Amino acid sequence: MRTTLRVSSRTFTSFTQLARRSQSTLISRPSPFSTPIASSSPRFRPAPAFFSFQSSSSRLFHTTPNMSSPEQQPSATLLRKSLKIACIQLASGADKAANLAHARDKVLEAVGLGANLVVLPECFNSPYGCDYFPSYAEPLLPSPPSAEASPSYHALSAMAKEANVYLVGGSIPELVEEGDDKKYYNTSLTFGPDGALLATHRKVHLFDIDIPGKITFKESDVLSPGNKVTIVDLPPYGKIAIAICYDIRFPELAMVAARKSCFALIYPGAFNTTTGPLHWRLQGQARAMDNQVYVALCSPARDMSASYHAWGHSLVVNPMAQVLVEAEESETIVTADLNAEDIESTRKGIPLRTQRRFDVYPDVSAGKVRFEE
Amino acid sequence: MRTTLRVSSRTFTSFTQLARRSQSTLISRPSPFSTPIASSSPRFRPAPAFFSFQSSSSRLFHTTPNMSSPEQQPSATLLRKSLKIACIQLASGADKAANLAHARDKVLEAVGLGANLVVLPECFNSPYGCDYFPSYAEPLLPSPPSAEASPSYHALSAMAKEANVYLVGGSIPELVEEGDDKKYYNTSLTFGPDGALLATHRKVHLFDIDIPGKITFKESDVLSPGNKVTIVDLPPYGKIAIAICYDIRFPELAMVAARKSCFALIYPGAFNTTTGPLHWRLQGQARAMDNQVYVALCSPARDMSASYHAWGHSLVVNPMAQVLVEAEESETIVTADLNAEDIESTRKGIPLRTQRRFDVYPDVSAGKVRFEE
Repeated sequence: MRTTLRVSSRTFTSFTQLARRSQSTLISRPSPFSTPIASSSPRFRPAPAFFSFQSSSSRLFHTTPNMSSPEQQPSATLLRKSLKIACIQLASGADKAANLAHARDKVLEAVGLGANLVVLPECFNSPYGCDYFPSYAEPLLPSPPSAEASPSYHALSAMAKEANVYLVGGSIPELVEEGDDKKYYNTSLTFGPDGALLATHRKVHLFDIDIPGKITFKESDVLSPGNKVTIVDLPPYGKIAIAICYDIRFPELAMVAARKSCFALIYPGAFNTTTGPLHWRLQGQARAMDNQVYVALCSPARDMSASYHAWGHSLVVNPMAQVLVEAEESETIVTADLNAEDIESTRKGIPLRTQRRFDVYPDVSAGKVRFEE
Repeated sequence: MRTTLRVSSRTFTSFTQLARRSQSTLISRPSPFSTPIASSSPRFRPAPAFFSFQSSSSRLFHTTPNMSSPEQQPSATLLRKSLKIACIQLASGADKAANLAHARDKVLEAVGLGANLVVLPECFNSPYGCDYFPSYAEPLLPSPPSAEASPSYHALSAMAKEANVYLVGGSIPELVEEGDDKKYYNTSLTFGPDGALLATHRKVHLFDIDIPGKITFKESDVLSPGNKVTIVDLPPYGKIAIAICYDIRFPELAMVAARKSCFALIYPGAFNTTTGPLHWRLQGQARAMDNQVYVALCSPARDMSASYHAWGHSLVVNPMAQVLVEAEESETIVTADLNAEDIESTRKGIPLRTQRRFDVYPDVSAGKVRFEE
């Protein structure tokens, strides 16, 4: 029987941000582009945690995640209660409605396996490819979008609520129309067990690679990039970071997230059959090893009839960089149990957090990091 | 037949450092604690590259490596000429003189295999352990030490010259006496083919770990840490970074070095039979993958009669994170060919350098980094 710890981290609102946004109107609910950090512990006296701001174009929400020197905190605060994570290696096709219905079935199946946190893969509601993004894209702003405008938003919200589970909704193509200008994003929506939207992450690093004779892909032909690190609190458990696929190649996101007290880094992603065998597992293990956190990578199942062949191999890595579970390429659900003790024992055994030499090189998490779009 | 490129990078001296050291005396030769960056290309007009400063306690040398926005440089400048690297997985014992003689034989053997750059392992002249550091330690300052004071310094210099090779001399325990105060460091000396000392790296991150029932080690009981990132130019080839063993767990050193145009990261190291199978190869691959450079890890051979059981498994990883060669645990020499094309094709295929989002998170290499003790 594992002991669970319930010590909340403190959160602070950035008052410089408050000052800069003096024209804004405080509202009570976070927007899709938020980085909400909840705090409920009676042991601390937290600053108000849920300020949000309404601007003319979209709602913007900001809290600065954990400015209380996270490197000094005991790591037990990272994960307040053990949980089971499930990565759904979903087989999607060209029929969006069918994809959404299939995702619902699989989310319910994952919860039947005991999952408290369920992850869907990148572009779970559509085929993956630049040719598909515009026709599958849905507007998400202003939030919440109407059911007609964004069936995927509402399907995700409904399945999180029905399954009573935290749901990292993989990603979907997002449409932003400004006059005649259309922009597209690769966007991940995370919902709570009550169906409320908790966080939105737009893929920051677009997948533009060209390995001759192997794979060429240029998301930036169609997509625009996101502009922030995304951290979200799941109140009973702690904070997770969400990023998408190619984002994992940029270790700064993971370093910032871990140093801001995330217990897990969640990457919906769709590596391919060239970079998959080279780097997929290695990326997951490297982020876990260097940051001593859990890492989950959730891929679509491989469809050899599709134009893009996803690597599959959804996996969960523990803070010691050991692969706890890894799928093959076909549709499946992989689960793993995450607990505070494994984070704590890893960090106690190899105490990187107190050994970093920020007098020799800078701490990337202490510099200017964007937490809002 | 590979094409080799001879385009030097530009170097600049830090004039703020110059100003701060106005009491210093310019001398013409780099000290052991230098980060020398040579520049010989007629295509640029470099600022003076070899200023050095003499202070009362030791010579200090400083150039700021490549301030000319290395992220924008073509990566072909990184490695101007192909080379063969050899990691000598040396079997050392308690007899220092025998260890030095054995190292000489093996360096000559490596050069016989065609090596242009030879690496020895951590603590190659002594057993590894806190009990041994003081009795094997040698003073290295003021530099050069006398032959009586530091037989290891002179043995390394002589074997580099005899073999006509660049030699990363693993590491040795260093003694610094200041009055009655004795300090010890875990120190790596790099020599050129003329026997001249090119760089000194003192281990920055001391190996203090405690994995119950597996391994407990506390270098900081005896050793003091170094205080800089170490980059050294090997004139015909380009720049390498040198760090020692546990330093590899701190990705900032590698990120800084790669972004300052190193083509390879060299780590003499002695992981153990607990962390070795978990993280040794993974560390090498992670640093290579994230920074798209070559990585070499050079371990002592395993000696089950010693108090510390080194993991062995010396290896070289290419910029695509593929392990080119990996030893088992016994004494051996592993070699690999390094070339500009593999760096170039990796970076062209997966162009991380131009995709990093320093508007979202800081560039650790653009911040305050120490390049001198």
